[in-house]
Amino acid sequence: MTPQSEDFSAWYNELVAKAGLVDRGPVKGTMVIRPYGYRMWELLQAELDGRIKETGHENAYFPMLIPESYLKREAEHVEGFAPELAVVTHAGGKELDEPLVVRPTSETVIGEMMSKWISSHRDLPLLLNQWANVVRWELRPRTFLRTTEFLWQEGHTAHAGEDDAMRETMLALDLYDDVATNLAALPVVPGEKTPGERFAGAARTFTIEGMMRDGRALQAGTSHYMGTNFARAFDIQYTGEEGRLEYCHTTSWGMTTRMIGAVVMTHGDDKGLVLPPRLAPHQVVIVPVGRDAAEVMPAAVELAASLRTAGVRVHVDDRTHLSPGFKFNDWEMRGVPVRLELGPRDLAAGTAVMARRLGDHPKEPVPLDRLPGMITGVLDDFQAYLLRRATEFRDANTATVDDWDSFASAVSTGWARALHCGVPACEDEIKAETKATPRCVPLNAPEETGECVRCHRPSAYGKRVIFARAY
Amino acid sequence: MTPQSEDFSAWYNELVAKAGLVDRGPVKGTMVIRPYGYRMWELLQAELDGRIKETGHENAYFPMLIPESYLKREAEHVEGFAPELAVVTHAGGKELDEPLVVRPTSETVIGEMMSKWISSHRDLPLLLNQWANVVRWELRPRTFLRTTEFLWQEGHTAHAGEDDAMRETMLALDLYDDVATNLAALPVVPGEKTPGERFAGAARTFTIEGMMRDGRALQAGTSHYMGTNFARAFDIQYTGEEGRLEYCHTTSWGMTTRMIGAVVMTHGDDKGLVLPPRLAPHQVVIVPVGRDAAEVMPAAVELAASLRTAGVRVHVDDRTHLSPGFKFNDWEMRGVPVRLELGPRDLAAGTAVMARRLGDHPKEPVPLDRLPGMITGVLDDFQAYLLRRATEFRDANTATVDDWDSFASAVSTGWARALHCGVPACEDEIKAETKATPRCVPLNAPEETGECVRCHRPSAYGKRVIFARAY
Repeated sequence: MTPQSEDFSAWYNELVAKAGLVDRGPVKGTMVIRPYGYRMWELLQAELDGRIKETGHENAYFPMLIPESYLKREAEHVEGFAPELAVVTHAGGKELDEPLVVRPTSETVIGEMMSKWISSHRDLPLLLNQWANVVRWELRPRTFLRTTEFLWQEGHTAHAGEDDAMRETMLALDLYDDVATNLAALPVVPGEKTPGERFAGAARTFTIEGMMRDGRALQAGTSHYMGTNFARAFDIQYTGEEGRLEYCHTTSWGMTTRMIGAVVMTHGDDKGLVLPPRLAPHQVVIVPVGRDAAEVMPAAVELAASLRTAGVRVHVDDRTHLSPGFKFNDWEMRGVPVRLELGPRDLAAGTAVMARRLGDHPKEPVPLDRLPGMITGVLDDFQAYLLRRATEFRDANTATVDDWDSFASAVSTGWARALHCGVPACEDEIKAETKATPRCVPLNAPEETGECVRCHRPSAYGKRVIFARAY
Repeated sequence: MTPQSEDFSAWYNELVAKAGLVDRGPVKGTMVIRPYGYRMWELLQAELDGRIKETGHENAYFPMLIPESYLKREAEHVEGFAPELAVVTHAGGKELDEPLVVRPTSETVIGEMMSKWISSHRDLPLLLNQWANVVRWELRPRTFLRTTEFLWQEGHTAHAGEDDAMRETMLALDLYDDVATNLAALPVVPGEKTPGERFAGAARTFTIEGMMRDGRALQAGTSHYMGTNFARAFDIQYTGEEGRLEYCHTTSWGMTTRMIGAVVMTHGDDKGLVLPPRLAPHQVVIVPVGRDAAEVMPAAVELAASLRTAGVRVHVDDRTHLSPGFKFNDWEMRGVPVRLELGPRDLAAGTAVMARRLGDHPKEPVPLDRLPGMITGVLDDFQAYLLRRATEFRDANTATVDDWDSFASAVSTGWARALHCGVPACEDEIKAETKATPRCVPLNAPEETGECVRCHRPSAYGKRVIFARAY
């Protein structure tokens, strides 16, 4: 496999295929998500879905095919998405009267339904979520990060006023921050997008940004406050308590299968994937070893059962045509957090040899009867280790810069925290020269003003902005 | 609402909308699945997904857009699906070189991937499942039963030989039988389709058929043995233990959102939905009553919490602008199995009034402290009652017939069990005259031969066939 240091992009493309996460689909830019990759998505999905429901949202399902005219009702929205649309022109053996677009996102069709369902302040807030596939035609596809079709959840909510809608926008961002940090072990930075990086049709866009191991930024989830833009375009109105007709304030927010790519690029190394236990399809793999591998199988199965009872996802590698050495490498490449080796001598001693995928712990024998009691702690420690390591990496590769040379240097390998004037033309110049774009204005950054790092005009936003090359 | 007896179809269409299960989508034949309907799908999905995984299958995800040429590789398959395809001809602002079809089912794209993934007998069986949306352009759409877009799971498996593939085909049918019978309380009849009713491209098709309350049959799940048809079309081959190259035998099987329609049409009555507890979004609704409804709210919330602890899905109707009487009707219409009324006098007596949606139990006061202990039993009884009632209805409306007049009479209101010659032209005549089609040759029917009920030629199949008008 190509080492990360030699060609990060080649390393990534080879690894996601070799580890069995994906395969190429027959249509350019599409991917097949194989069981090992899909299981990670299911684990993330279950946790995120639980949080979405706990916070009062309900799941629903809206049609995938949307009349082309709907997209055009919100001017900025159609301008942003028109170049990426896939269009159904024929169906049932005939040319359609009106072409249908495959949803690139569902604000329009959901907006249309909200206008039917909402009439009174009693119908608000309306808190909906959908798990679905969407299609955006990508010129430069990249597995998981930018694929022509991807899977996601999209939350869509309507509220009686700006305050309530903004609270919702931030609540969704908090859910994403929680999922990214505590499940995927991504130390993301939550912040607001600059106007040039906003979602097409949004009044404000918030994001969580993660740093990949090549120093680039990846947008891992976004939450949008739409103001009344979509409410006006789709006539989403309610009668207030005083009987006045008012426009709703709406939000939308999404997290996608790109999270799997983020996990690969944040934790992986030259041996392969490194999976955070909370998203690992197999948290523990048991590999029988020694000449009498068949003899230890019953004990391996018994050990697996006892670990499962302890709530652990465990897999016994019972393949008979492969050597233990091959299997060790294979499971390292596939990123399994903990490997247990079990041979006849181990068994006689009442132990298994425990090897962690990463970290300072050496391989060590552990008494079989202690394993069920200690395994959850081992996995929690591993999860915490990954987050700590990624946080240290992010901080070591983020520079606070006040002059242009330092800025250019910082964004060539990582992130720059800089003051910026907020002028779109200045953003464009920075991008043309360094490929870096403003990723976000971090929510928790201290207040600070001064001169723009590029053009020396007075800074905007009242804070430093994170700039980086991005996926 | 239109009574069932007056116009079953109008009753159904009014009810699914009024109960908040669905709304019409903007494109003809599409539906929006609203939260109350989607929750039923999620409950079914969780149970079915668990069974699919327990039996060794893994979930994956395949692209929705399929090159048109793929469909054409299996001659019967394309013939069956061509009239129903939606076709993407433009994407990314350009006309595509090859049109892409929106998947109507995924045998072709999965077949293409299987041919890449399978090379040795060690790769078999390959047991995959996908949860996805599919599009089939419907000329006569009907909510849930036949919609242009619907949700489903599709299992796709590859095996080393016919025996193994047939075991898989029957295992999937058993899963569907279990889910239909034990979750949806549909007393379905598992059986084999006659050749004229097979899936396009299948060697054998199996089905579970349920009887709706208008006497029609509904196909509630199908499982197909493909023989080597798709393996030959997509070159899915493996090297056997003796080194010979062989074609795989494949299967596919699917269950869809039409199950929600089946539940409505099997259990509903003129008051509205009747939901089996295992698929009911709310199994119990608590309605505060009396002039001091606000005063009993804390007790209602406390009762709800104690029922939740007992594992029950419970909802407190805290709407203040609606009368208790309105709420009783509303929850009856929405099919909630058990309603608990809680007023100040009940509270003073330490009781709540329990009303079941159906059955012989009168409304009765029940001590609050006994409710958590008894509620699961009440719900289980209700679930069993629905299955028993539907089974009695099915049996009362199924006639074993040996002459044409009895046949025509039986299929005008229910099902006919009849001997049939198996000749397609005779099937066609029967359909033209009565609108009835062969629904299945039941697996568990006794062996029996004789004369065809229609043409008096010798019977085929060695058993009676179920004929009915179908959805």
